[in-house]
Amino acid sequence: MTDTQPRLVQVREHVLKKNDLLARALRARFTAAQVLAVSLVSSPGSGKTALLEKTLTNLPRDCRTAALVGDLATDNDAARLRRSGAPVRQITTGTVCHLEAEMVQRALGDWKLEELDFLFIENVGNLVCPASYDIGEHLRLVLMSVTEGEDKPLKYPTIFNSADAAVITKMDLAAAVEFDSAAAYRNIHLVRPGIPILEVSAKTGQGMEPWLNFLQSKGQKTSTRD
Amino acid sequence: MTDTQPRLVQVREHVLKKNDLLARALRARFTAAQVLAVSLVSSPGSGKTALLEKTLTNLPRDCRTAALVGDLATDNDAARLRRSGAPVRQITTGTVCHLEAEMVQRALGDWKLEELDFLFIENVGNLVCPASYDIGEHLRLVLMSVTEGEDKPLKYPTIFNSADAAVITKMDLAAAVEFDSAAAYRNIHLVRPGIPILEVSAKTGQGMEPWLNFLQSKGQKTSTRD
Repeated sequence: MTDTQPRLVQVREHVLKKNDLLARALRARFTAAQVLAVSLVSSPGSGKTALLEKTLTNLPRDCRTAALVGDLATDNDAARLRRSGAPVRQITTGTVCHLEAEMVQRALGDWKLEELDFLFIENVGNLVCPASYDIGEHLRLVLMSVTEGEDKPLKYPTIFNSADAAVITKMDLAAAVEFDSAAAYRNIHLVRPGIPILEVSAKTGQGMEPWLNFLQSKGQKTSTRD
Repeated sequence: MTDTQPRLVQVREHVLKKNDLLARALRARFTAAQVLAVSLVSSPGSGKTALLEKTLTNLPRDCRTAALVGDLATDNDAARLRRSGAPVRQITTGTVCHLEAEMVQRALGDWKLEELDFLFIENVGNLVCPASYDIGEHLRLVLMSVTEGEDKPLKYPTIFNSADAAVITKMDLAAAVEFDSAAAYRNIHLVRPGIPILEVSAKTGQGMEPWLNFLQSKGQKTSTRD
């Protein structure tokens, strides 16, 4: 393997560089249109879609939202999210383990960005690879559910390091799994000091109000970012 | 991106081919030593380490075991597993999202394989990338916890397709998350018809006896495989 590894790294760096340029252009486009682009990354099954479903439904009516959702296969998530009434498009990646800026650009198609306030982009469920790919978002949220264990930030530091806020999900299960909130906060802040942490349960609604306020406070700042 | 993508794919295929050759040699070595190599793949936090911990402790005393555990960072898992008394080595991958055959080969070092009955290899928590890399195992187990949702096999088909058995973990939480066992079985079998499915809870011990029997039944066949 050793003789091929450097070439793979080299080619990968080239891909990442091109991705970064495209992502930067995308972000400039979002900023010009005054739409806040928010991406969600997490393990499979951490509750990205459930949180997004509640978010699309519960943001005030005058917040205009749209969503892109990435998955290897199926368009189940897009179908779920469309019930909110927001425009939603699925990005099916096949065997690719993350979204790239080019996929986002292509999926946007004819959407009029200036008519939106929030564009949510749900990444493929993967706590490793999406960390390396800027997809033009203003705000990257890393989700971890209480069922995954408090040690995840230490074991997957890169993704926590690249995030702007951490969201602890499935708080309704915290007691059942004896979730140690203090340990989770400590581990998140060890990896990414000072990062805002929110706790939510899409099922019971716990923490939804602060979460929606947090989003809206970021939204008002869109035009001054980047 | 389109101009660089084919080159990345080309280089990646070269890497995969070299990995396959090395994996095949590893598997031949395991077979010759009559050690069953069992790999565990899953999302982060599905309970690979917890299951492995109970497995190392509860297999009959005359089963000689060892384990390799992969993570991006920390050697927490190795420390946990060493409490069982079995030899355990951590493979720290840095930013690499999966184990490769070469990492396994290097980690084995001076271990005398012929003195073992089972070698467990816990992959990095990732439901996508490990699917593409043969690491010389005889038996690949894909784990999914009841908290992740019954749709995961449909959304991450490649890893279920490359597995020899599926293990549903955290069964103690099944009621709390209203886990739909029939839907999970249906989805697993849609992707991988006929694959054996086991249900376990490392916490309560539920399903541990059939699980240990399953492992031992495979172990007795080591010498006739591959």
